Amino acid sequence: MKFIIQRDRLVQSVQDVMKAVTSRTTIPILTGIKITATNEGVTLTGSDSDISIESFIPKEEAGDEIVEIKQPGAIVLQARFFSEIVKKLPTDFVELEVLNHLQTVIRSGKSEFNLIGLDAEEYPHLPQIEENNKFQIAGDLLKAMIRQTHFAVSTSETRPILTGVNWKIENGELSCIATDSHRLALRKAKIETDHEASYNIVIPGKSLNELSKIIDDSNEPIDIVITENQILFKAKHLLFFSRLLEGNYPDTSRLIPADSKTEITVNTKEFLQAIDRASLLAREGRNNVVKFSTQEGGIIEITSNTPEIGKVVEEVQSESIVGEELKISFSAKYMMDALKALEGTEITISFTGAMRPFVIRPLNDETILQLILPVRTY
Amino acid sequence: MKFIIQRDRLVQSVQDVMKAVTSRTTIPILTGIKITATNEGVTLTGSDSDISIESFIPKEEAGDEIVEIKQPGAIVLQARFFSEIVKKLPTDFVELEVLNHLQTVIRSGKSEFNLIGLDAEEYPHLPQIEENNKFQIAGDLLKAMIRQTHFAVSTSETRPILTGVNWKIENGELSCIATDSHRLALRKAKIETDHEASYNIVIPGKSLNELSKIIDDSNEPIDIVITENQILFKAKHLLFFSRLLEGNYPDTSRLIPADSKTEITVNTKEFLQAIDRASLLAREGRNNVVKFSTQEGGIIEITSNTPEIGKVVEEVQSESIVGEELKISFSAKYMMDALKALEGTEITISFTGAMRPFVIRPLNDETILQLILPVRTY
Repeated sequence: MKFIIQRDRLVQSVQDVMKAVTSRTTIPILTGIKITATNEGVTLTGSDSDISIESFIPKEEAGDEIVEIKQPGAIVLQARFFSEIVKKLPTDFVELEVLNHLQTVIRSGKSEFNLIGLDAEEYPHLPQIEENNKFQIAGDLLKAMIRQTHFAVSTSETRPILTGVNWKIENGELSCIATDSHRLALRKAKIETDHEASYNIVIPGKSLNELSKIIDDSNEPIDIVITENQILFKAKHLLFFSRLLEGNYPDTSRLIPADSKTEITVNTKEFLQAIDRASLLAREGRNNVVKFSTQEGGIIEITSNTPEIGKVVEEVQSESIVGEELKISFSAKYMMDALKALEGTEITISFTGAMRPFVIRPLNDETILQLILPVRTY
Repeated sequence: MKFIIQRDRLVQSVQDVMKAVTSRTTIPILTGIKITATNEGVTLTGSDSDISIESFIPKEEAGDEIVEIKQPGAIVLQARFFSEIVKKLPTDFVELEVLNHLQTVIRSGKSEFNLIGLDAEEYPHLPQIEENNKFQIAGDLLKAMIRQTHFAVSTSETRPILTGVNWKIENGELSCIATDSHRLALRKAKIETDHEASYNIVIPGKSLNELSKIIDDSNEPIDIVITENQILFKAKHLLFFSRLLEGNYPDTSRLIPADSKTEITVNTKEFLQAIDRASLLAREGRNNVVKFSTQEGGIIEITSNTPEIGKVVEEVQSESIVGEELKISFSAKYMMDALKALEGTEITISFTGAMRPFVIRPLNDETILQLILPVRTY
């Protein structure tokens, strides 16, 4: 194998596939990046066996030569060293050549690295996915949907299925749901699909988090293909594979209350900042819980009290309080996570009593909601 | 105690004195910030008993009212909570009031905190320092002198005196010297002094590091007063006390070779980047050592070789190589630290053989030098 490549493009691709590489693997070859040169260009692959990422660098693009292939071939190089090296090379072009015995030379200006590679034949094959049934979603929308749901997955392995995000596709609509059984995040969107299939799958939260880091914040469409135990995201020159979690995701639809007894509309930022301050003294005591109560004149009072340290009282003027008076306690952290995930300057919170889960929605937006279970303190 | 203060000024002062506060203290009251209100303004104090910082906020400045004192007094508040609170308060002005039993109320807009304070009478007194013998140095020069020397102090407690920077003042010149016995950093500058006294003291590296974070990067003069076991730095509205290290600092003047056998002049940035790359594969093997050798045509070759991983060869075109041929090995980390500390686009390295310490200086600048001991590998 031998080729000369634009350094910037190589650096970008290495950074992308590095998202899948971990040093904590039991399969030594997966600490490497696989580099394959064909007459079409160069492909880099990284994998931790849960996530696999493939980035393709074409020989040329818009008339600009990006890679000059001198001899096709393949090699696996230690990801940690290779990524550090390419970042620091001195010139705009890099030559990569595999000599005999897997010895690989990287040349740039007056800098020359000799790395001992691993045999590319031993690198695991990526899943072969038939692309019959695919659907499409814009990159920026996909990123938003991940951001608004994946934080609510469980971090505990006691119910492994809850460490994933439940994706349901039906009637041209994608619903993403995450819950750790104390709170739930839901986001829906219309999608482009060329078939009638419906799906109900669970994608590891970690996979979605890594995916959202490498897709562009543009409306370029991402193709999505779902199989029995894999999901494939296809962007331009990029393939992102994730395994799916096995098992049935709990039916969450009945958790969301249909009616409400108290409905409050409030400015998102003011409310978020008040919750943040009210929780300052509560961070260690009692699991970060604040008390919330409705007052005369549309005022919301948020308080917390940690005996040895002190107490906080915050007042927020709401837009409106409709329905019954309410005193309720909840995790300030869950509330702040939920408020940060919502878009829009105003939110509505619908309560059905101090012991029932409550729902937070942006004003006039039915595609997203956040649900939080209260804490018993009153 | 009761006063109303501009939030921005309070936040800045709290941040400054926080540099001296640590949660790892055996004296509980030192986890707090002491707040004293007099008719002149508000003083904040933080201390870990090695370093003490006092920040004064005047009642008014340039006709602008900064603090309105309603009742003088003093209190100590938990630094961690107090600093978080003031940062997040909603309005531009903050009211602070001590009620009975050390209860302290912090009010801002519709936010009200009740903190349980500690008795200010129990806060240790700061050292009383007579200001008879002081000298002056511009803030930006002081910061530069700290930056260029303190990194070379020892991090090991086996010779505690080497964890400090040796300051020598004589004939209107300040010399700062730091060494961990493998390398040495030296920086000199002329200073303003109103007396003939000479000093030879050792200031803890940590103190200087914290000091350099809170002094402005301007040419405003800093007053310095040295006593038996303390040093005081006085900037506008700011006092910074540090204890001095006890013991005699080794005489380092004889370490610096007077003559040289090989002298190399090279572009600082090109050389630094080549060393950085050459060390990429050596970071774990053999203590990050690279080999350096002079070649025909003014070329410097830098190499490293880690058997299981690979090897690197870097070539740098020097401006000049004068004197004997040379092969030498040294720590890439020490060399990079030294090069980053030096100002100037070109440096001269003076070697007196492969086993002797060598000296790095900017071209045409006698006020600063870095010395490194080589490693035996050739």
